[in-house]
Amino acid sequence: MRTSIATVCLSGTLEEKLRAAARAGFDGVEIFEQDLVVSPDSPEAIAQLARELDIGLDLYQPFRDFEGVDEDQFEKNLKRAESKFGLMARLGIDTMLLCSNVGTATISDDGIVVEQLRRLGDLAERYEVNIAYEALAWGRFVSEYDHAWDLVKAADHVRIGTCLDSFHILSRDTDLDRIAEIPGDKIFFLQLADAPALTMDVLSWSRHHRVFPGEGSWDLSDFLTRVAATGYAGPVSLEVFNDSFRQGDTNRTAVDGLRSLRWLEASIADRSASEARGPEGSDSTARLDLQPLPEVEEPRGINYVELSTDDLGVLTRQMHQLGFQFIGFHRSKPHVQLWLRGKARIIVTEVTDAANTTSAPVSGTFLRGIGFEVLDSEAAMDRAALLHAIEVPRDEAHDEEVLRGVFAPDGSEVFFHQLDRSRPAWIREFGHDHDEQVSHIDHVNLAQPSNHYDEAVLFYTSLLALHAQSSQDVPSPSGLVRSQVMSSSDGSVRMPLNVSPQPHAEAGAGRRSIGSAVEAYPEHVAVACEDIFDAAATALSRGLDFLPVPQNYYEDLDSRFDLDPEFLQRLQEHHVLYDRDARGEFLHFYTSTIGSVFFEMIERRGDYLGFGAPDAPVRLAAQHRRNAQWSS
Amino acid sequence: MRTSIATVCLSGTLEEKLRAAARAGFDGVEIFEQDLVVSPDSPEAIAQLARELDIGLDLYQPFRDFEGVDEDQFEKNLKRAESKFGLMARLGIDTMLLCSNVGTATISDDGIVVEQLRRLGDLAERYEVNIAYEALAWGRFVSEYDHAWDLVKAADHVRIGTCLDSFHILSRDTDLDRIAEIPGDKIFFLQLADAPALTMDVLSWSRHHRVFPGEGSWDLSDFLTRVAATGYAGPVSLEVFNDSFRQGDTNRTAVDGLRSLRWLEASIADRSASEARGPEGSDSTARLDLQPLPEVEEPRGINYVELSTDDLGVLTRQMHQLGFQFIGFHRSKPHVQLWLRGKARIIVTEVTDAANTTSAPVSGTFLRGIGFEVLDSEAAMDRAALLHAIEVPRDEAHDEEVLRGVFAPDGSEVFFHQLDRSRPAWIREFGHDHDEQVSHIDHVNLAQPSNHYDEAVLFYTSLLALHAQSSQDVPSPSGLVRSQVMSSSDGSVRMPLNVSPQPHAEAGAGRRSIGSAVEAYPEHVAVACEDIFDAAATALSRGLDFLPVPQNYYEDLDSRFDLDPEFLQRLQEHHVLYDRDARGEFLHFYTSTIGSVFFEMIERRGDYLGFGAPDAPVRLAAQHRRNAQWSS
Repeated sequence: MRTSIATVCLSGTLEEKLRAAARAGFDGVEIFEQDLVVSPDSPEAIAQLARELDIGLDLYQPFRDFEGVDEDQFEKNLKRAESKFGLMARLGIDTMLLCSNVGTATISDDGIVVEQLRRLGDLAERYEVNIAYEALAWGRFVSEYDHAWDLVKAADHVRIGTCLDSFHILSRDTDLDRIAEIPGDKIFFLQLADAPALTMDVLSWSRHHRVFPGEGSWDLSDFLTRVAATGYAGPVSLEVFNDSFRQGDTNRTAVDGLRSLRWLEASIADRSASEARGPEGSDSTARLDLQPLPEVEEPRGINYVELSTDDLGVLTRQMHQLGFQFIGFHRSKPHVQLWLRGKARIIVTEVTDAANTTSAPVSGTFLRGIGFEVLDSEAAMDRAALLHAIEVPRDEAHDEEVLRGVFAPDGSEVFFHQLDRSRPAWIREFGHDHDEQVSHIDHVNLAQPSNHYDEAVLFYTSLLALHAQSSQDVPSPSGLVRSQVMSSSDGSVRMPLNVSPQPHAEAGAGRRSIGSAVEAYPEHVAVACEDIFDAAATALSRGLDFLPVPQNYYEDLDSRFDLDPEFLQRLQEHHVLYDRDARGEFLHFYTSTIGSVFFEMIERRGDYLGFGAPDAPVRLAAQHRRNAQWSS
Repeated sequence: MRTSIATVCLSGTLEEKLRAAARAGFDGVEIFEQDLVVSPDSPEAIAQLARELDIGLDLYQPFRDFEGVDEDQFEKNLKRAESKFGLMARLGIDTMLLCSNVGTATISDDGIVVEQLRRLGDLAERYEVNIAYEALAWGRFVSEYDHAWDLVKAADHVRIGTCLDSFHILSRDTDLDRIAEIPGDKIFFLQLADAPALTMDVLSWSRHHRVFPGEGSWDLSDFLTRVAATGYAGPVSLEVFNDSFRQGDTNRTAVDGLRSLRWLEASIADRSASEARGPEGSDSTARLDLQPLPEVEEPRGINYVELSTDDLGVLTRQMHQLGFQFIGFHRSKPHVQLWLRGKARIIVTEVTDAANTTSAPVSGTFLRGIGFEVLDSEAAMDRAALLHAIEVPRDEAHDEEVLRGVFAPDGSEVFFHQLDRSRPAWIREFGHDHDEQVSHIDHVNLAQPSNHYDEAVLFYTSLLALHAQSSQDVPSPSGLVRSQVMSSSDGSVRMPLNVSPQPHAEAGAGRRSIGSAVEAYPEHVAVACEDIFDAAATALSRGLDFLPVPQNYYEDLDSRFDLDPEFLQRLQEHHVLYDRDARGEFLHFYTSTIGSVFFEMIERRGDYLGFGAPDAPVRLAAQHRRNAQWSS
C-alpha cells in the first residue's frame, strides 16, 4: 500500500515536513499550498529535495472555489488554475486536489458544473495534470461524495476524477454503498482521517479535531476496504488537521501517522487474507498490495511493574507495609531487586550516580516500565519495530532471559514477556521459587501528556491490541483530569490513562508573571487482594502512611448507600473507600505518594468492573493538600 | 448588589476557595457539594471559617434527580434531601439549589411534579430551608426556565422558589419576556455565566466553556436588568464551569470573577440611572442596590509604548533604521530614553543590574507597557482600582508628571495618560519640543497566555472600554495562533491579542521525554507611515535586518491579485508584503526579532481596516526559520 501524508498534518517548515515524512517511511506527501507559499525554497528546490529523500510528491492541494460560478468569474478561475498547473510542473506533481466550492458558488446547476469541470479537464490535459474533485462536507452546493462522483461521471473526462476523504464522508454519516459504483481508476486520490465522536459544527470538528486512523471512533477499516474493492491502486494519504499535531514534534507526528496507516493496512490485509481463503476465494483488495504485520493477540496480564527510585528505603518500606515480600537482588544487576505479593511483581531499580549508566538524567521515584504477558513475544517485538516503536536499549548477560521492549509515548517502557508457563523464568534470576499470597496487579494508572494522548491510544491499540474505553472527566483541585481506560477484553490488563491539567507557561520573558502553575499528576499501581481489611490491618500495624480520607466522605457515602453502621465504621477505621454498582462492590485504600508514584490496594467483590471513579476526586483533593503542605 | 461565586468556579481546596473569594471581595459563596465531600474540614469548621472571613454561605448545591419519579423512589429522594437539610443546618446555609431531573425522571406529569415539590417544601419548612428549583438546559422533562416557574407557581409553597441561571436560559435562546411574570421574591437565587458562541452539544458547552460575564458573547446586562426588574434582591452569583479557571490560580480567578460582576453592576447602574432621570423616572433595579463605577470613555490613542532591554545598542540601532529619532534621556532617570517617529513614541528602558531596582528579575528585550490616552486619567485609575487591578509601583520626582498604571493579565503595564493637549507634557522631561514626521503607532500586537485569555478580554473591556472583535486562527509552523483584536470604536487603539501554542510539559519526572517544545510567540509594535517604500529605502540604506519574504509569496501574490509587474518588483525589492480588500490596500514590512519584540512598518491606503492577516503565516514561518537557525 502506498502511504502518503499531507504536509498540513505536521509542524515545522516544508523542508522539515518532507524530511520527517521520509524518515518515518512514507512513500509520498501531499503538498499543502500554504506550506509552499511561506517557504524560501523554490518549487524546483523542493522537487530536488524530494528526489534526494526518495519521497514522492503525490498531490498539490487545495484548489478552492472553482466551479458553480458565472462565466466572468470562471474565466478568472481558469487563469488561476493555469498558473497553479505551471507551478505543479515545476514541482513535478501530476495531481491537483479540487475542493467543492464553499465560498463563491452562485449557481446550483449540475449541468453547468459538469461543463466547467470538463473545460478544466481540457486545460489540465495540456499540462498533463489530473484533477481530483472532492466534496467538502460544508460545500455550498456539493457536499456529498456521491454527488461529486455523479458530476465527475457526467463530465466524462480523462483528466477529471474524484477524491474520497473519510472525514467529509463519515462526518456526514452518508451511506457508503455508492462507493462500490465508482471504478477504482476514477478515484484519483484517497485521504484518510479519523475523528472522535463530537457534537459540534462540522467545520470546527474538521479543522481542529481530526486524528490519525485508530485514534478516533470511526471504522476506517471498513471504509478503506470499500475503497480498495473498487480497484483503487493509488496512495492512501493522511489528511489530518489537528491542533496538537500542528504544534508537536514533526518527526514524532510523522511516525505516529505512519504507524496508523501500517496498522490499518495490516488489519485489512488480515481480513482480506481470511476472505481469500474462504469459499469465494477472491481478494478484492489486491491492487492496493497490502502488507500484513506479525499478528499479536491481546496480552494475558501484567507480568511485572518496574519502579525506579533514588529513595530506596522509603519505597521498599511502603511495599513491605503493603505486604510485599523482598525476594532478592538480581544475580548480575546489583541495583535491581524483586518484591512479590502473590502474582503482583514489582521490580525496584535503585538509581544512584554509580548505577546510572544511561545518558538520560533520571531522578526521583517513578514508574519506569511494565512487562506484559504476551503469547508470542518475538512477534510482538517484530510488530512493534515495524510500527516504528523505539526499542529500549538493554544489556543482558548471556545466560539470562532476554526481555525486549519499546518506549511508550509517555516515555515508559513496555516489555513483551513470553507467556509460556505459570511462573516466569526470570524470577529465578532473583533466587526465588515459590509464593503463597493470592494477589496480583489489577491495573496501572499512567499519566499522559495531553499532546501525546491520541498517539498513546494508537500505540497501545496497534502494538498490544488493547481497547480504548470511553473517557470521563474527574474533577481535581487543579483542574479536570481526563481519564480513559485501555484494557484487554477479559480485563486481565487494565490501564487507566490520565491526562492531567498541564502546567501553563506564563507571560513572555522578562515580564512579571502572575499566578502559579499546577502540580504534576502522579501514577499508581493498583494491587488486588483477597481481603482489604486484612491488608489494611497489616499496613496499619506496620505504620503505613495512608492517604487520609475525610469524615465528610463517609457521611456522604452513608447518604448515598445507606450502609450498615458497623460496616461504615470498619471502612473508616481502615481508611478504606467504597463504591458499589449493580454488579458488585469495590473496596480500596491509597498510600501516600513517593516521588511520582503511589499504591492502591483493592478488593473487588462480585463483578464490579470499574475503578471507583466516584472516589477519585477524594484522592485527588487529598493529594493536592499533601502537595500544598510540602511546598509551603 | 450582593456578589457571590460558586466554589466550583475556582481551583484548590474548599478552604483555599473561601479565602480567595473573601480576599477578592465577594459577599458570599455557593458551596458545591463535591468540594465539601472531599474536604477534611467539618461542616462546622467551614461555617466558622466563613464567619472569620466575613463571607456568607449563600447556597448549597446541587441537589439532583429529585422530582418526576415514582413513589418508591420519591421516598428515598426525600430521605436523601433530609440528610442534606441536616448538613445545611450544620453549615448554616438556608437555601438549596434543586436542579430539574436529568437522569432518573420517568414521569412527565406537571401535576405529580408540583405535588412532589410541595411535599419537599413541607419537609424543608421543618428545617427552615428554601428550595431554589432550576431548569437545566438538558433536563429530562423540565428544561425551560418558564416551565420551572410554572411548576413553582403551581406548587405555591413558601419554601419553594425558582433559581434563574443565565447559561441554561440563554444557551437555549428562550424568549426572556416571561421573566417579568415572576415576582422577585419567588426568585430564590440568581446565577450568572457568559459563554462564547459555540456550536456544540449544550452539556459540553456548559461543563467546559462557560466564562465570566463580559468574557463571552451574551448580553448579560439585559438579562440582569430583566431579573432586577422583578424586584429580586438576592445574591448575584457566578456559576462558571471552565477548564482554565479550574486549573488557574485561585486568587486570580476570584478577582477576575469579581471584576466581571462589578463591571456588569456598573453598566446596569449607568443604564438605570439614565432611565431614572428620564421621563418615566422609576428605577426598577433599586432593590439590587447597584453601585456605579467611575465612568471611562474609550481611549483616544496609544500615547507611547515602553520597551525594556538589556541589549540597548541592538534595539536602538533597529529603531534608527526605522526612522526613529533619538530625543534624549529622561532628566532624572538615566536609564530611560525617548525615541520618536512623528507621533509614534517609544520609551526605551535599559535594564542593567544596577538599574534593576525592582525585586522581579527581568532580562532580554520585551514590551513592558503601553500608555493609553484617556479623557480622565484619574477616573480611569480609580475605576481600575475598584476593578481590583494591581497598581504598578513607580517612583516619581516631585516636579514630574505623575503617570499611574496597572498590570494587565499578561504582565504588561497599562498606563493612563491624560489627553489634554496635542503634545504630551512628559516629553519635555526628555528635553524635546518638536517633531515633523507623519507617523504614529497603528497597533500593538500582544502575546497572551491561553489560560488568561478570557481574563484579558474582560480586563481591556472593563478598564479601557475596548471592544473584542471576532477571533481567527492563523497557522504557524508551531501550531495555530488564535488572534483577536481589542479596539476602540474609531480604531485609534488597536491591539491584536495572540494566543500562541503553549510549550507542553513532557512526561513525568525522571522518565525519558520524546519530542520538543514550541518556541515563544513574539510581540510587536506596528508603526504607520506615509510612504512605505520611502521608509523601506531608508531602512535598507541603514542596513536593517528585514524579516525575509520568500519568492513563492510574491508569485502567489501575483496569481491572487494580478498585480502590475513593476509594482510587484518594487514590493519585492523593498521586502514589502501586500494585501488588499474592497476598501483599500495594506503595505508592510517586518524587522527581525530582538528578544521577544519586533517592529512592523505599515502604510494603509484607502479604508483598509485589517492587519494583513493573509501575510501572518509568511511572517510566522520566517520567524520560525530564524529561531531554528539560532538554536541549531
